[in-house]
Amino acid sequence: MIRVGILGYGNLGKGIECAVKNNPDMELKAVFTRRNPADVKILTEGVSVYHVDEAISKKDEIDVLILCGGSATDLPEQTKEYAKYFTVVDSFDTHARIPEHFANVDKSAKEGGNIAVISCGWDPGMFSLNRLYANAILPGGNDYTFWGKGVSQGHSDAIRRVEGVKNGKQYTIPVEAALNAVRNGENPELTTRQKHIRECFVVAEEGADKARIEAEIKNMPNYFADYDTTVHFITEEELQRDHAGIPHGGFVFRTGKTGWNGENSHVIEYSLKLDSNPEFTASVIAAYARAAVKMQKEGMSGCKTVFDIAPAYLTHLSGEEIRAHLL
Amino acid sequence: MIRVGILGYGNLGKGIECAVKNNPDMELKAVFTRRNPADVKILTEGVSVYHVDEAISKKDEIDVLILCGGSATDLPEQTKEYAKYFTVVDSFDTHARIPEHFANVDKSAKEGGNIAVISCGWDPGMFSLNRLYANAILPGGNDYTFWGKGVSQGHSDAIRRVEGVKNGKQYTIPVEAALNAVRNGENPELTTRQKHIRECFVVAEEGADKARIEAEIKNMPNYFADYDTTVHFITEEELQRDHAGIPHGGFVFRTGKTGWNGENSHVIEYSLKLDSNPEFTASVIAAYARAAVKMQKEGMSGCKTVFDIAPAYLTHLSGEEIRAHLL
Repeated sequence: MIRVGILGYGNLGKGIECAVKNNPDMELKAVFTRRNPADVKILTEGVSVYHVDEAISKKDEIDVLILCGGSATDLPEQTKEYAKYFTVVDSFDTHARIPEHFANVDKSAKEGGNIAVISCGWDPGMFSLNRLYANAILPGGNDYTFWGKGVSQGHSDAIRRVEGVKNGKQYTIPVEAALNAVRNGENPELTTRQKHIRECFVVAEEGADKARIEAEIKNMPNYFADYDTTVHFITEEELQRDHAGIPHGGFVFRTGKTGWNGENSHVIEYSLKLDSNPEFTASVIAAYARAAVKMQKEGMSGCKTVFDIAPAYLTHLSGEEIRAHLL
Repeated sequence: MIRVGILGYGNLGKGIECAVKNNPDMELKAVFTRRNPADVKILTEGVSVYHVDEAISKKDEIDVLILCGGSATDLPEQTKEYAKYFTVVDSFDTHARIPEHFANVDKSAKEGGNIAVISCGWDPGMFSLNRLYANAILPGGNDYTFWGKGVSQGHSDAIRRVEGVKNGKQYTIPVEAALNAVRNGENPELTTRQKHIRECFVVAEEGADKARIEAEIKNMPNYFADYDTTVHFITEEELQRDHAGIPHGGFVFRTGKTGWNGENSHVIEYSLKLDSNPEFTASVIAAYARAAVKMQKEGMSGCKTVFDIAPAYLTHLSGEEIRAHLL
């Protein structure tokens, strides 16, 4: 059994807890939190919640520690710190800071003789993998990534910061015509506006000026101004009833040509349709947590991304079994 | 530069030659054939064609030898023989014999200090990878593989063996309703007939009994009897004009649930739409040939499948570059 620790018990941490339950070779050993442990109720019976300060003292009881903090401030500190003591996995997704994060974590993980998998999930993660495989297969081609239909936390937060907005949720939706053009091998050049639309469900405060709110959202630079945005005003009850989920997904395409004179075209498409973004991310992380433990036991150490990990490490099945049933 | 040799110059061998041209870090060094080398004209200027008996004597000039023979009789002998002398890649696809092939090739490759990648292409190959990744992520789920729209060589051959048939081509086509049911997460139980239809284009000999030919095709056990099959009679000219290509493709799905009580559903879909089956297969093989050479240079040896190879080995880009641009 792979003994799993979770550090940080938000949506992702809860998702990891569920993924551990769904993987028969894993067991949850401990949850660590910065809150008062007595205030954190988890789903798994018989497992203790500890204050984060106790984590390092539990290192011999845990095979892999999943770091479920945020990329902005938590993970840059946590992953490099805990990789000294644990085999760890994080979902760091601040793209520009990956080189720095990789270098810091690599140093700690090597120091500790541990494996540290960073930037794990679906994007970065499974989408990255598909970009890499498809680029290696079709060297002279075009890449397209579309996101959605799904909830963007950042854009939902941006809506909620508008004056007069009580609550809100934003869906990112790929433009069907753009998807089809790519799928048909037309290799379109697509602007930001041509790729995605943004749909907002907004609960206004009583007496607020809805026309102003709508205009303010639609013209918000970076977040909405470059997109076709629709704004629907609904009640708090409707928001809770119809928009409580955290679905997401998307599409990764690569198109390219082969042949002596590029006479044949090919389209590679990978897509995800997810009811729960954090639970799917957690499911990917659980598979890579297994890989990390196996690699560490083989004597490897250092920082790894999905690019560095042979697929066979992800499964609990043997080489013979996967060759017989999945090849 | 990775120096590539090709053994066997049919559709796949020609595809490898084109893939080498399209990969800037590869060069073709030699083609080996069982035919009279003087009769084999290749596309690359300045590269020699040798009789297969000369292959082993050229081993120091070649970094990786791509074995382009058939799975029935060629590869079971060739891969285990040449893996003693070369890093090799094959596209062995006789599923039931993979364990035996793997064991034989592994022994030779270890003996020779070489890497031997077997069963490389898109199925087995990229489809297998997607099955493995998706199974690791969603442990309690359902797998679906659909093939097509594409030309099945085996079924086209079967048509041509029917008395009175001069020429013919068969397309395997996934049933749209089945694809959509899977894509919508309905987890259907599908019979053979519900998954694929078979469309045949047949050139009859003059005076042949078309009704008998059609009935004979439609009732052919294993090949057609379990499918809804349509038969179109066309002229040889129409066949050459409209059906000269070798397109193929298909879809790999995994659907599964996450959450404490399986309350959230997810659909993972991978699909290929290929103008040329052999050229795309060759493009996958070229990427794995690069991987094999890199792994051999790092001191690894033995038989590998796509499951055993970390994605980063497939590309000529550095770890820093792929983390910066593809992660």
